[in-house]
Amino acid sequence: MQALVLLSGGLDSTVCATLAVKRYGKKDAFIPNGDGNVKALSFIYGQKHEHWELEAAQDVAAALNLFHGAVQAPFFPAYGDSVLLNPDKPIPQVSYGEIEGVSPTYVPFRNGTLLSIATVKALEWGCNEIWFGAHAEDAAGWAYPDCTPEFTGAMAAAIYVGTYHKVRLIVPLQHLWKRDIVKLGLEIGAPLHLTRSCYTDNELSCGKCPTCLSRLAAFEANGMEDPIPYQEG
Amino acid sequence: MQALVLLSGGLDSTVCATLAVKRYGKKDAFIPNGDGNVKALSFIYGQKHEHWELEAAQDVAAALNLFHGAVQAPFFPAYGDSVLLNPDKPIPQVSYGEIEGVSPTYVPFRNGTLLSIATVKALEWGCNEIWFGAHAEDAAGWAYPDCTPEFTGAMAAAIYVGTYHKVRLIVPLQHLWKRDIVKLGLEIGAPLHLTRSCYTDNELSCGKCPTCLSRLAAFEANGMEDPIPYQEG
Repeated sequence: MQALVLLSGGLDSTVCATLAVKRYGKKDAFIPNGDGNVKALSFIYGQKHEHWELEAAQDVAAALNLFHGAVQAPFFPAYGDSVLLNPDKPIPQVSYGEIEGVSPTYVPFRNGTLLSIATVKALEWGCNEIWFGAHAEDAAGWAYPDCTPEFTGAMAAAIYVGTYHKVRLIVPLQHLWKRDIVKLGLEIGAPLHLTRSCYTDNELSCGKCPTCLSRLAAFEANGMEDPIPYQEG
Repeated sequence: MQALVLLSGGLDSTVCATLAVKRYGKKDAFIPNGDGNVKALSFIYGQKHEHWELEAAQDVAAALNLFHGAVQAPFFPAYGDSVLLNPDKPIPQVSYGEIEGVSPTYVPFRNGTLLSIATVKALEWGCNEIWFGAHAEDAAGWAYPDCTPEFTGAMAAAIYVGTYHKVRLIVPLQHLWKRDIVKLGLEIGAPLHLTRSCYTDNELSCGKCPTCLSRLAAFEANGMEDPIPYQEG
């Protein structure tokens, strides 16, 4: 059994990747021809923070000893509604709790597109499973409709049928909240100190955007400080 | 209501596009800023016949007066199992009826990927519906698992949920056979004479590959000759 893990280098995908490594044992060491049991895939889709995301994903993949690939997916409109893409729209400095309905950080049907491309790669790489780190806080209040159980369930069916029953979608964090994910990550030794979640295009995480605030709160709920550095002030 | 039609310039997508034009009336005339009611989208994904496919799609879009875009989707492994992509594997000269199980012309999870990218484009272009020409003969015997009702139903759900209920997938030919599609196309005045189905990279259709044989039989079942030219011999 081989697993392809979607890896952004954030908290969720790093815990997801670590779970996959735990699940499929020690054979997942990096092998130059790509025969490891767990493979990581990152995406460059026009996100402002792509440089830092990719750097974090590389660090995490190296720490977990994973084969790691990256794919360009330049389909998303830069000047649309998404603050993750639009250079004219600053990343908001609010928590997800203050956002109603669809999040301004939603990228139109991004996860459907990335999961589909991941499916093509899974077939190419001989992976039977795709592991995807969507979780309950993503889905809460429909902030990210493409992280909900309704969405992942439908995609799981499309992937399974559309690949002739060769590939399954696994969403191990679907019903966990961010605090639970940090707790789980600590328990299984995920390299949380190498992760980066921030949506800004700065080397140091801002500590003020929705995803920074979310991870800071999740570490605090576990009675500890977030191990990564933040900008001062 | 605006519809985005996946248009390869083959029989099925041309009939599908003509149906969409019929459905959404005369407002779908081409408007330079893309405000027409029906928009067509083609894909360049490494298929050997891409030049001829795109040319046919352009001709059909022009005949139907549609806004027409094309997207590059270079994710599919050229040297894999698919005869549509692999330069070392010739297009077989057999009918679909002689193929058992998955077709050698299946491109791994192509339709999931193309439908996902189409969804991104539908949101960008303000289209509420995606029209997709998958049909009963594609699905028969699981030749194309990503054309089955099970697949399109799951994708329809993923698209609807994942776009925050903004986009629906419409598969109007799902339960028609090729002969029925030709019949329907003739009835509604689809520009069948401009279509091209052949999988070979030749200007004239070969008349011997699975999709050529399928359309030739479908016209014959309707008591007429296929209106497009074929290679001699």
